[in-house]
Amino acid sequence: MGLDLAGPEGIGLVAGTLTTAAFVPQVVKTWRTGSASDFSLPMLLMFVSGVMLWLVYGMVIAAPSVWIANAITAPLSLYLLWIKLRRG
Amino acid sequence: MGLDLAGPEGIGLVAGTLTTAAFVPQVVKTWRTGSASDFSLPMLLMFVSGVMLWLVYGMVIAAPSVWIANAITAPLSLYLLWIKLRRG
Repeated sequence: MGLDLAGPEGIGLVAGTLTTAAFVPQVVKTWRTGSASDFSLPMLLMFVSGVMLWLVYGMVIAAPSVWIANAITAPLSLYLLWIKLRRG
Repeated sequence: MGLDLAGPEGIGLVAGTLTTAAFVPQVVKTWRTGSASDFSLPMLLMFVSGVMLWLVYGMVIAAPSVWIANAITAPLSLYLLWIKLRRG
């Protein structure tokens, strides 16, 4: 699981930084409003499950950029799901 | 780039199906309303760039589930960006 930034993992880390960073403002907004009413529950359940599976996949194929990106996105998306389940 | 569904690529394909499917309702909503005013432009630019880089990464490491998922998400996110640029 070495991280050779000059190789594909460098591309993956930039990719993961961009897609994860794009997700952060949404989490900040939900944290501020305390509301996730505009999200559908099935959509959140699919997204959280998908991110967890990407995390497993990244570990299985030993691709650090894949599992690092999803290890960060997983708790963020779980937070959205938790707010949705608690507050609707 | 063979697709062995019993191996990690099977996990990746389920992961990609879930995260991409979770994104589709958003695209349908934007298509219906013709508006992307609630999205921030920097966020969309980061997301589109990130998805394109994931696509390149998936091709470079020859991981079909990674490039297939992002080859589907790329035009969907580009559509959101296009609406944002055209209509605000």
